[in-house]
Amino acid sequence: MSSPVLSLSRRLRKSPFESRSHVGAKAASVYNHVVLPTAYASLEEDYWHLREHVQIWDVACQVQVQVQGPDAHKLVEYLTPRDLSKIVPGQCVYAPLIDEKAGIVNDPIILCLAPDRFWLSISDTDVLLWVKGLAIGAGFDVEVADPNVFPVSLQGPQSETLLSRLIAEPLSDIRFFRFIETHIDGIPLVVARTGWSGQGGFELYLADTNEGERLWDLLVDAGEGLNLRSGCPNLIDRIETGLLSHGNDMTLNNNPIEAGLDRFFKMGKAADYLGREALERIASAGPDRRMVRMVVEGDAIANPRETYPLTVADTQGCGCVTSITFSPRLGFNVGLGYVPADTTAAGTAITIYTPTGTVTGHIANNDWQTAD
Amino acid sequence: MSSPVLSLSRRLRKSPFESRSHVGAKAASVYNHVVLPTAYASLEEDYWHLREHVQIWDVACQVQVQVQGPDAHKLVEYLTPRDLSKIVPGQCVYAPLIDEKAGIVNDPIILCLAPDRFWLSISDTDVLLWVKGLAIGAGFDVEVADPNVFPVSLQGPQSETLLSRLIAEPLSDIRFFRFIETHIDGIPLVVARTGWSGQGGFELYLADTNEGERLWDLLVDAGEGLNLRSGCPNLIDRIETGLLSHGNDMTLNNNPIEAGLDRFFKMGKAADYLGREALERIASAGPDRRMVRMVVEGDAIANPRETYPLTVADTQGCGCVTSITFSPRLGFNVGLGYVPADTTAAGTAITIYTPTGTVTGHIANNDWQTAD
Repeated sequence: MSSPVLSLSRRLRKSPFESRSHVGAKAASVYNHVVLPTAYASLEEDYWHLREHVQIWDVACQVQVQVQGPDAHKLVEYLTPRDLSKIVPGQCVYAPLIDEKAGIVNDPIILCLAPDRFWLSISDTDVLLWVKGLAIGAGFDVEVADPNVFPVSLQGPQSETLLSRLIAEPLSDIRFFRFIETHIDGIPLVVARTGWSGQGGFELYLADTNEGERLWDLLVDAGEGLNLRSGCPNLIDRIETGLLSHGNDMTLNNNPIEAGLDRFFKMGKAADYLGREALERIASAGPDRRMVRMVVEGDAIANPRETYPLTVADTQGCGCVTSITFSPRLGFNVGLGYVPADTTAAGTAITIYTPTGTVTGHIANNDWQTAD
Repeated sequence: MSSPVLSLSRRLRKSPFESRSHVGAKAASVYNHVVLPTAYASLEEDYWHLREHVQIWDVACQVQVQVQGPDAHKLVEYLTPRDLSKIVPGQCVYAPLIDEKAGIVNDPIILCLAPDRFWLSISDTDVLLWVKGLAIGAGFDVEVADPNVFPVSLQGPQSETLLSRLIAEPLSDIRFFRFIETHIDGIPLVVARTGWSGQGGFELYLADTNEGERLWDLLVDAGEGLNLRSGCPNLIDRIETGLLSHGNDMTLNNNPIEAGLDRFFKMGKAADYLGREALERIASAGPDRRMVRMVVEGDAIANPRETYPLTVADTQGCGCVTSITFSPRLGFNVGLGYVPADTTAAGTAITIYTPTGTVTGHIANNDWQTAD
């Protein structure tokens, strides 16, 4: 059957960049109630272009939840096992938010705007309601709000060249996961060295939504000679980079240790946080399964709708593939998924059960090598 | 520009009816992270068919939030200004959920399965996170979960005839907004006389998602001779019926009094609920604006992306149109929107500002008459 077109309604929040970013978009999804373009030329062409040039992405769907007030820092600490005691204004921190069972609610980038003011720049769940509910229930003295701030992203190796044409501050002063507050032609922006690709770039947070189209056009004009194109988060690039997608690779039913997000925090932070008891129990017993990278040679595999089960060779162990796609650069399928925690060694053989038959693959290390 | 197709990913939850309901769907949206078909033949053809025959709707996107445990009833009462003290098993209640400022978080149907077990059958916000946050923060003794229960809906005048071919119990025993627990060919179901149309019908809540396709096929087979078609919530029918859409006609920035949902509850219920103080203040001062129906003669108007501002003739008052479409039956545009609370009389002239020019219309009563 042919794919239905995405029907728009007022229920889907309007990106301030929509009139520009939807031009040429062949496919789109909905993310945080906002339309997210998902394909322009093709997955593969978009991938190669991203690696070589610079792309402008409408990621307005990465909406903000603002936590502000006397208890703001205490509440943000309460949401995550990551230690935020040393966070300073101008810093971004990637931090999983967990519930009382250590299930992953969301995995935002937390921007510290002031000691008592934070943005959670979120993946696809209504964190606004989660944080409001907790704050009201437990009596934190904060205001939790949606400030109507939407990011546009420049990603790819030429993004710094492009942006330096528009911003007076030396961009080299913005370290990875840091931001500055600046202007482009009078438009106030938060500019962070972040973004959901492995190719480097910036996210520009726009508060004045009336300036969305002008900002987009200024960025496009500044891209002259750089082969700038509209783009979007690219499945091949993000799997190769090992970026997990909430809803795809982890949900409320996964904990951050099994998902491998524990590389972003140390157990035992001083501040109180929800889910500590559950998470400490998992850390101490060890998780049952772990997220690994997987390599599958042969024909291209995709799993747009299915979680494929897998078994680990020579064991009774089973797991699943959560994301997989063919890498035209590496020449094999690159996948992410869960296997039993005691069978994560690179090179371990796995069998994957797809609707069209079984295929064999191997667990890989972070360089996509299947031998240790 | 042409409309992008909806791209699927594992992040979008799979409806158990998807392999059936997506056949023939020309357009779709995403609602509660689930794909919702939004058009089959055409808006107008779907409308006429719905009024005359029976349609099967994949409304899996109307997901459930289950609240269960010793404090379940107390917590559900806490979520809404509607008095639930007399709710009994087998009863459905439409109830706005509000926040501390009386903003509308969601407008579910609440199903009472047992005195200590409820489903909130929700519109498009993550009520799971809202209720979990409140319950954890305030220490309610409940389990809040997503039970993986998905509705399929039969709507239209022939829905009772169809369903009576499959269910042993006399359907006339199921009153409006009541449900029974029953089976169709061994598939356990909750069957409620509810649904998001003005044409009558039932919603069948399926817990065993492996039975989705078989259930769909059984319903289709039982529709023989009844001109059954796949369908979906229809914009024309739902506006004519005055059914509000959360995200379109009301958001967290609206309170239930101005949205006209106060016809579903009386102020001053005994049980404690969040937002009481804010709501009582609004009730006592009177809301600033009120939701009304509007009639606009002339050419068809649509507002898939925009809230159109309006002014009320002979006053300084302004408001907005939140939903509007052309009714082929009534021969004019039917709209919903807000006007100042002191200018709601049927017949009051309004001027609406659309991107293609201004049009004039009138406030209507609930029968779409523009004279009192």
